[in-house]
Amino acid sequence: MMSAIPKDFLSQTARVSEEAMRPFPNSEKVYITGSRPDIRVPMRKVSLSDTPASFGAEQNAPVYVYDTSGPYTDPKINVDLRAGLPALRAGWIEERGDTEALPGLTSTYGQRRAQDPKLSHLRFEHIRTPRRAKAGANVSQMHYARRGIITPEMEYIAIRENQKLELARAQGLVQHPGESFGAAIPPVITPEFVRDEVARGRAIIPANINHPELEPMIIGRNFLVKINANIGNSAVSSSIEEEVEKMVWSTRWGGDTVMDLSTGKNIHETREWIIRNSPVPIGTVPIYQALEKVDGRAEDLTWEIFRDTLIEQAEQGVDYFTIHAGVLLRHVPLTAKRVTGIVSRGGSIMAKWCLAHHKENFLYTHFEDICEIMKAYDVSFSLGDGLRPGSIADANDAAQFGELEALGELTQIAWKHDVQTMIEGPGHVPMHLIKVNMEKQLKECGEAPFYTLGPLTTDIAPGYDHITSGIGAAMIGWYGCAMLCYVTPKEHLGLPDKEDVRTGIITYKIAAHAADLAKGHPGSQVRDNALSKARFEFRWEDQFNLGLDPERAREYHDKTLPKDSAKIAHFCSMCGPQFCSMKITQDVRDYAAKHGMDEQSAVQAGMAEKSQEFKAQGAEVYRKV
Amino acid sequence: MMSAIPKDFLSQTARVSEEAMRPFPNSEKVYITGSRPDIRVPMRKVSLSDTPASFGAEQNAPVYVYDTSGPYTDPKINVDLRAGLPALRAGWIEERGDTEALPGLTSTYGQRRAQDPKLSHLRFEHIRTPRRAKAGANVSQMHYARRGIITPEMEYIAIRENQKLELARAQGLVQHPGESFGAAIPPVITPEFVRDEVARGRAIIPANINHPELEPMIIGRNFLVKINANIGNSAVSSSIEEEVEKMVWSTRWGGDTVMDLSTGKNIHETREWIIRNSPVPIGTVPIYQALEKVDGRAEDLTWEIFRDTLIEQAEQGVDYFTIHAGVLLRHVPLTAKRVTGIVSRGGSIMAKWCLAHHKENFLYTHFEDICEIMKAYDVSFSLGDGLRPGSIADANDAAQFGELEALGELTQIAWKHDVQTMIEGPGHVPMHLIKVNMEKQLKECGEAPFYTLGPLTTDIAPGYDHITSGIGAAMIGWYGCAMLCYVTPKEHLGLPDKEDVRTGIITYKIAAHAADLAKGHPGSQVRDNALSKARFEFRWEDQFNLGLDPERAREYHDKTLPKDSAKIAHFCSMCGPQFCSMKITQDVRDYAAKHGMDEQSAVQAGMAEKSQEFKAQGAEVYRKV
Repeated sequence: MMSAIPKDFLSQTARVSEEAMRPFPNSEKVYITGSRPDIRVPMRKVSLSDTPASFGAEQNAPVYVYDTSGPYTDPKINVDLRAGLPALRAGWIEERGDTEALPGLTSTYGQRRAQDPKLSHLRFEHIRTPRRAKAGANVSQMHYARRGIITPEMEYIAIRENQKLELARAQGLVQHPGESFGAAIPPVITPEFVRDEVARGRAIIPANINHPELEPMIIGRNFLVKINANIGNSAVSSSIEEEVEKMVWSTRWGGDTVMDLSTGKNIHETREWIIRNSPVPIGTVPIYQALEKVDGRAEDLTWEIFRDTLIEQAEQGVDYFTIHAGVLLRHVPLTAKRVTGIVSRGGSIMAKWCLAHHKENFLYTHFEDICEIMKAYDVSFSLGDGLRPGSIADANDAAQFGELEALGELTQIAWKHDVQTMIEGPGHVPMHLIKVNMEKQLKECGEAPFYTLGPLTTDIAPGYDHITSGIGAAMIGWYGCAMLCYVTPKEHLGLPDKEDVRTGIITYKIAAHAADLAKGHPGSQVRDNALSKARFEFRWEDQFNLGLDPERAREYHDKTLPKDSAKIAHFCSMCGPQFCSMKITQDVRDYAAKHGMDEQSAVQAGMAEKSQEFKAQGAEVYRKV
Repeated sequence: MMSAIPKDFLSQTARVSEEAMRPFPNSEKVYITGSRPDIRVPMRKVSLSDTPASFGAEQNAPVYVYDTSGPYTDPKINVDLRAGLPALRAGWIEERGDTEALPGLTSTYGQRRAQDPKLSHLRFEHIRTPRRAKAGANVSQMHYARRGIITPEMEYIAIRENQKLELARAQGLVQHPGESFGAAIPPVITPEFVRDEVARGRAIIPANINHPELEPMIIGRNFLVKINANIGNSAVSSSIEEEVEKMVWSTRWGGDTVMDLSTGKNIHETREWIIRNSPVPIGTVPIYQALEKVDGRAEDLTWEIFRDTLIEQAEQGVDYFTIHAGVLLRHVPLTAKRVTGIVSRGGSIMAKWCLAHHKENFLYTHFEDICEIMKAYDVSFSLGDGLRPGSIADANDAAQFGELEALGELTQIAWKHDVQTMIEGPGHVPMHLIKVNMEKQLKECGEAPFYTLGPLTTDIAPGYDHITSGIGAAMIGWYGCAMLCYVTPKEHLGLPDKEDVRTGIITYKIAAHAADLAKGHPGSQVRDNALSKARFEFRWEDQFNLGLDPERAREYHDKTLPKDSAKIAHFCSMCGPQFCSMKITQDVRDYAAKHGMDEQSAVQAGMAEKSQEFKAQGAEVYRKV
């Protein structure tokens, strides 16, 4: 709502809160340079302290972690929201020579907003002239991949996915092999592997040519599992300022992509601010804005309004669109007996339109027209699951699977146009039905990446749906899901605030990482091993800093033992100094050292002695005393 | 610490906080009477409002949920902590005629504490004379079960586990069948089934004859998955008052059993207050208190001190003991190369003792002596996993599995004595290794119930280990684990406060319930269905009240739309009135009604029309526009 937007945010002090930009403790933003100097891949280097003398006094190598937070956590970069982030991909896009800068916006609605003087106080100041593919060109990463071209984006991603794996290998990486359910993760990700996966349609690189600010990332089941965070205003709440802050906040905690689901006022202007300042891909559901344009009356939607909305958003730089083209007239009756009917907003809008007009979904009938737009800007499809189950009762029913089959057909059409495509999935699914979802999606959709909301494994915990769904998310991630859409504690109840966003993201980073470990993603266990070693050696600061949320870990520790001295103490706050199992384990090792033998020999000596004693007593294991 | 205990708690105002006793909204404690009037099984009856007219104006039957909260949430009972709860099992125990009231405590330590005038201000006022099996008698539920006796406890449990399933069936229960991995859950739980499962050792009923206050419950994989909450003071924190409050608080949110892990001062007196006021089984780790008795020096532990501790606690009424009898001398060297060594406190104490003495674990060598004590009071074994992995790196290693094999041997010995036995499990395990744990436990331990701590599926989220472990807990519960030991957000960092306990328990109720759904436990989906129906019909209050934490759900809702009117509004706070998918779905139904047809016909009519149109146009699915 306009009244909620402080004018000075946009005109003078436009900036993100300090808490959203604070560098992580003992961490440094480093950049790995690729084959050319303008490929600079960011990572967070976490420095560790030495192992204390009592545990062996060794040096601990730094750990490099995947970093989604962009320039915000780099103190060397002074981010100015009014200017937007540096356009790091601009040169790559230009040098390909297949795009042109348009004279201005081509969307009618976009033009109207740009020219409305009443909006000038809300408008981003440095709107770039949009680019589009030259006539007849296709500028999708999939198109390049299929022609054998390794783009700078692909090389960037290969470096990023490896997370300095060679260092971990040099230090003797210890890792469980994992169980990958047919995924084929190579020991090292190469640029050629990235290209091949994109060419096959098994992975996508959401990267609109009008979003040159983004740091390239990939979504596919042979890569690290990714997570998405939703933001967006609504008719009842929030301002542009809050949405930009939420986007930065989301990437700080590890959001790999952000969806702007705004349905309130000034959606166009809000989106511009978000994209210009976002280091991660931005997704939207264009039908939401289209519906706003017809004052919420689904039956008044037309292809023309929708088409203009796609172009409007593509020219701003949205990286992927959720399109509910699989909700077909014949599916709607299949939802009649459901406990929760149609719970997807996009799905219910299209169902209503279909029934009101007694016509097939115009997103379906115009699907090839949509493909033409997508490939001119390299917007990726996120084919929406408009009929996803909204309750355990409705899981895996005919409506859901009927739509999934339709999405499979549409995937083939998108691929005919070399348009990158992922598939959205449920929803609410009990644990024993999750694997079926994953397998059916891979089969129906030719291994296109799956992108699921949870799934929630029970309906009975409003207020805790980040957890009901985090369980399902971890499992489907393991089974092969490529990206997990987060759920916050406020799901079903209200709009998430900053703390909810943080909790939702950390929960989903846990799910994604648990899945990477279970799949055996190379190097994924480096961080677990380093953190556990720090825990065993009572390096409290290192334990905090290697965690997904160092601030929360420190805060919880300090609630029990607030003094700084406690952080170098060789015992936990749980048990006190006398009673710590880690301390006792160390005593065991010390005992061995004192007797001039290593631990194993100490015990073997004891065993030998014991053995003689046993024999002398008749070697009965169970003796009455 | 003594200084932290307010005197007036014990002498005058001894009571639980109001927030821990407040009845749940729209809920009533009801009792189902069994075959005899003194079998009265508590349930929480949640009353629901009618479906609004726009959705069909039907009445919604109440939902009955399993209730662990005891008399505290029954406003008709005035709980007096100084008197303790009513001894509802006293008559059952007495009428069996196989026990006798002892003249007094037989534990030396217990006698000393009872006679120490310095402790009088801390002491529970109405300490009952302990009971013990008559000479030669075995009073375990397993012993009765194997002799074909159905005890009142078994009948009570059968009623409790069914949760008024007959009502759900009468209303046309809709439920997914589930996938049970060899579990054999019958459509209705009968007392005979309970007896048979206990006789086979596949389930235990922890119910010490000296804890007649407890409401009987069962732990086994053919029953509802149970959860345990840990409480307990430590050298650095908390008082008797806080521990009793935590116990009540734990049962309020759904803790099926509570372990008192105190390692601080006045452990004996604290435990008496807890047991006398606990409606759920209480477990302990006796070695913790034994270690206190030797001032924390593991090497000074003796069988005699430990034996006296077992008797001391058995005479107070502890229902199950964690005994680390499977940590053998030969296992200790297997932990030498681990990332986190031995992380179980009990395990590390015994390892230290073994090495210091160069002798086999005295809990192992005296195992049959321990069985003699267990069967005299019906204390159940919880065979401890002293070598459980403390990190992902150490999961499923030779030390862990070596101990599990030893626990399998010990289970057979316990069963020879008809002593009820469950097996403790890990720990830290990546998702793909969880099922192996469950399968190996069933195989090695003859299907004795498994009781696991999580497992945590990654190490990298200190501050969120309720979630890292809730994922693993849900999965292992599905695979067949009978009880899940909760983990709170403070795990690895500090001592949980009340809010942490609540969060930990709700997380584990989610895991347990998700597992029940996935296993297809009969009737488990009733609550999900009722909640989802309420959600679809915008019955906000019913949605809150059917959730695991109604207070939290309401609080989150009210943060976005605080007014009471919002709770009868037919839209969500997330999207506002125009934009709600549930509203649109209802519009679809209304549209059908307006046209005088049911939803399915409406669509079919539309389809027919559409179909003609399609044919007229040449029936091309993809037409260029």
